[in-house]
Amino acid sequence: MSTETWFQGHLKELCEDECLELLATKTVGRVAYSGPDGPEVVPLNFVLQDGTVLIRTSAYGTLGRRLQLGVAAFQVDEIDEFTQSGWSVLLRGSVEPVMDDALPAEDARPVVWPEGERSFHLRLTPRTITGRRLLPA
Amino acid sequence: MSTETWFQGHLKELCEDECLELLATKTVGRVAYSGPDGPEVVPLNFVLQDGTVLIRTSAYGTLGRRLQLGVAAFQVDEIDEFTQSGWSVLLRGSVEPVMDDALPAEDARPVVWPEGERSFHLRLTPRTITGRRLLPA
Repeated sequence: MSTETWFQGHLKELCEDECLELLATKTVGRVAYSGPDGPEVVPLNFVLQDGTVLIRTSAYGTLGRRLQLGVAAFQVDEIDEFTQSGWSVLLRGSVEPVMDDALPAEDARPVVWPEGERSFHLRLTPRTITGRRLLPA
Repeated sequence: MSTETWFQGHLKELCEDECLELLATKTVGRVAYSGPDGPEVVPLNFVLQDGTVLIRTSAYGTLGRRLQLGVAAFQVDEIDEFTQSGWSVLLRGSVEPVMDDALPAEDARPVVWPEGERSFHLRLTPRTITGRRLLPA
């Protein structure tokens, strides 16, 4: 881990490697995209694959239609209300559909919690990866 | 609570009252806004005041500048990785600065976890309030 001095209650920028390590600890993140009336944010299951975020949705739902070939952001965080601390990681980039032959093996694909057909895979390839950690005050 | 039939692993739409009740249980949410390179998402402390979301930031930071008089969304959720369930609430609307005389009493204002000057209050007034709950599978 970092050897920098940390200050309680202070925000510390995380490097890309730290961001990706933290991202890999989660199975749910939030995708943000521009809807017709401004930004929308939806939690989704995901897996990290070679530095990209792989998600699964329905091709016919709002999310599938809006996310195709667009710019989007993917956010994960961990917030501890008791110690008033936490971290947040944000990936910003473009989203595109993933063809079947570009998918990882069955057991490395996102496991989706809600029931229902969600066979449409999308990949967010980050252009920027940023994050911050807040130490307990 | 609702008397509707719930289906395990199914998503259930929440009504506005349920959304506001869930929102009130949290002290941290995520504001999403359109940056120059697409959507951005940042966790923030907040308080709910008369159905609006009150946040505090620095007037000189990126967030304060970008959020002024813009459309934005505010999202809160609770995710249980063990039972693979949770809920998410999304408020979409416009953000505007709050003048001092429109602020609630000192002890009803957002308590901000990070240190540093954050004396600039902004209010998101929701145009839509939507939410979903996912029952354990």
